[in-house]
Amino acid sequence: MSKIIIVGHKNPDTDSVVSSIAAQEYFEKVLGKESKAYCAGMLNNETKFILEKLEVEIPKLFEKIEDDECAAIVDHNQPSQIVDGLDYGKIEYIFDHHNLNIVTEKPIFVRVEPIGSTSSLIAKMFFEKGITPSEVTSKLLLSGILSDMLNFTSPTTTDEDRKLADKLNEIAKLDMQEFVTEMFKAKSSLEGISIEDVITLDYKTFEMGSKNVGIGTWETTLPESVNIKKDEIFAALEKKKALENLDYMFFMVVDILQGNCQLYIIGDAEKELAEKVFGKEAENKLMTLPGVVSRKKQIVPQLTEELSK
Amino acid sequence: MSKIIIVGHKNPDTDSVVSSIAAQEYFEKVLGKESKAYCAGMLNNETKFILEKLEVEIPKLFEKIEDDECAAIVDHNQPSQIVDGLDYGKIEYIFDHHNLNIVTEKPIFVRVEPIGSTSSLIAKMFFEKGITPSEVTSKLLLSGILSDMLNFTSPTTTDEDRKLADKLNEIAKLDMQEFVTEMFKAKSSLEGISIEDVITLDYKTFEMGSKNVGIGTWETTLPESVNIKKDEIFAALEKKKALENLDYMFFMVVDILQGNCQLYIIGDAEKELAEKVFGKEAENKLMTLPGVVSRKKQIVPQLTEELSK
Repeated sequence: MSKIIIVGHKNPDTDSVVSSIAAQEYFEKVLGKESKAYCAGMLNNETKFILEKLEVEIPKLFEKIEDDECAAIVDHNQPSQIVDGLDYGKIEYIFDHHNLNIVTEKPIFVRVEPIGSTSSLIAKMFFEKGITPSEVTSKLLLSGILSDMLNFTSPTTTDEDRKLADKLNEIAKLDMQEFVTEMFKAKSSLEGISIEDVITLDYKTFEMGSKNVGIGTWETTLPESVNIKKDEIFAALEKKKALENLDYMFFMVVDILQGNCQLYIIGDAEKELAEKVFGKEAENKLMTLPGVVSRKKQIVPQLTEELSK
Repeated sequence: MSKIIIVGHKNPDTDSVVSSIAAQEYFEKVLGKESKAYCAGMLNNETKFILEKLEVEIPKLFEKIEDDECAAIVDHNQPSQIVDGLDYGKIEYIFDHHNLNIVTEKPIFVRVEPIGSTSSLIAKMFFEKGITPSEVTSKLLLSGILSDMLNFTSPTTTDEDRKLADKLNEIAKLDMQEFVTEMFKAKSSLEGISIEDVITLDYKTFEMGSKNVGIGTWETTLPESVNIKKDEIFAALEKKKALENLDYMFFMVVDILQGNCQLYIIGDAEKELAEKVFGKEAENKLMTLPGVVSRKKQIVPQLTEELSK
C-alpha cells in the first residue's frame, strides 16, 4: 500500500496547514493508512504562532513525490493552487470546501462540502466515524476554524461550523477568545515579513471566464500598519502582475476587528472592473468595501460572474 | 428549504436509475430533505425489467428544474453527460464513481469514490450513518451493483463492492444468480429497440485531449443478435458521428458471458487510433478484444492517454 503525502495549497494559510496535519491523524487512526503532512510554502505568522503554541512541529516543505507515494490535497482543488512538483495523476484524495475545478484521469476519493473551513470538514469526518481526534488535533482543527472564519465573523460561517467547534472544544478545552486574540495579533504582525511576502502570503490566482486574476489578502487587526506601506505594495503588485502575465491583480487589506476591507486598485483595468462589480468609486487607488472580509464569498464569485459574461 | 431533484446521466443505465431512486430514500431518511428521482432518458430493457420485477414505478422523465428546486446528480459529473435543461448553478450534490471533470461556481456537496458503482457508494453512505435501507431500496442497489459490475466479472469490481452487496442482500434476500440471469436476459433482448437505440442506450461522449470521442456500448449474452445487424449499425454510427461533429466514434459489443468485446471500427481514423492503442488489427471493421468488458477502465483511459499526448 502506498504512503499518502498530504499537502495544502500554495501560499499556505492556517486552515490548509492544520487540516493537513489533522488529516494525517485521520488517515492513520480512522483509515489505517500511513501518511505524512507537508506544507506547500512559507508559513504566515499566525500559523507559526499556532504551531509553536501547541508545540507541533512545522511540516516539512513539499519538494517531490516518490514513486511509491500517492497524494491527498486539502483545502484546494484548482490546478493553479496545487503545489509545484505534484503530478496530478498521483492525487488520490481531495478534502476541500471550495468550488470544483479539476479534471482527474481516474476516479479518486473526493469529499467536498459547502462548509466554513477544511478543518471543519476533517472534524466532521472524525466524528462521523465515531472516532475522537486527539487533544492536540482538536486544538489544531479549532485554530483552523477560528482562523478561516475570522472568529465566526465571516459570511462563510455555517451553523455546522459552530457546532463542530463546540464539539472540538470539549476535547481541546481552549479559552477561545484569549486564543483568537493572540492568533490575530500574530497574524497582524509584520515582523520578518517583506513587502513581497505581504502580498503573496495569502495569494491565489483564479481563472474567471477567459481571464486570469490574482488576488492577495492581508488580514489584520491593524490595517494602518499595512496601509503606510501602500506605495511599496503597489509597486510589488504591478511587478507580480506583469511577471505572471495576469489580466487583473487585486489586493485586499481586511480589518478583522471592524469587518471591512480596503481593496487596492493598481490600474485602469482593475478600477473599471471593481467599480462595475462593487458599485463604489476608488479614491487614491483604494476602494473601501464595508462588511467585506471573505475573498471566497464576497469577491471571487462577483468578479467571476462579471468576467464570465 | 428547496426540494432536491435527483437525476443520473443521459442515456441512463441501470446504476444511474436505481441509485437515483435509492438516493431519494437517502435524502429523506438520512438527511431529512424532500427529494424526487427523475430519469434522463429512455430506460433500457434491463432497467425496465428490474423496476417491473421489484414493482417500483419508473421515475418521470426530467424536463426542467423549478426555481425552488436544487439538483443532485448521480453516476456522472462530466458536463457532456448532464441532462439537457439542468442549469449547472442548480447542482448542489454530486454522488459518483467516475473521474472528476466539472467546474462549479460555488462549493457544493461532493462525494466521489473509486468504487464499482454509484449504487455501492449510496449503500456505503446508508451503512456509514448506521441506517438500513428499506428492502426494496436494498434490492435496487444490489441490482445496480450486479449490473454495473456485470455480476462482479468487471475489472471495476473492488472487495468493498462485494462486501456491500453481501450486506445489502442480508436485507434484500435475492437469489442473486437467478436474478442476474434474468437481468442479463432482459439486457440482451432487442425487443422494441431500434438500431438508433442500440447504439445510444449506453452511449457517452468524452473530451480526450482536444478531441471529442463518442463511445457506445451494448452488453449482451448473445453478441450474434447484435452482430447480424452490423451494416445498419455502421450506418447509424457514421450518421451520429457526423451529426455530433465528433473526431472519433466507437461502439463496443460486450459479451458478458465470455468476457470479451468486439469493437466496431467505422473508419480510417478509428482504425489507426485503435490499432495503436490496443495493438490489434481490425478485420472486417471489427477488432476483437479478449478480456475487455469495461469502457471506463479498459477503453477510455487508454484512448485518453494516447489523445492527450
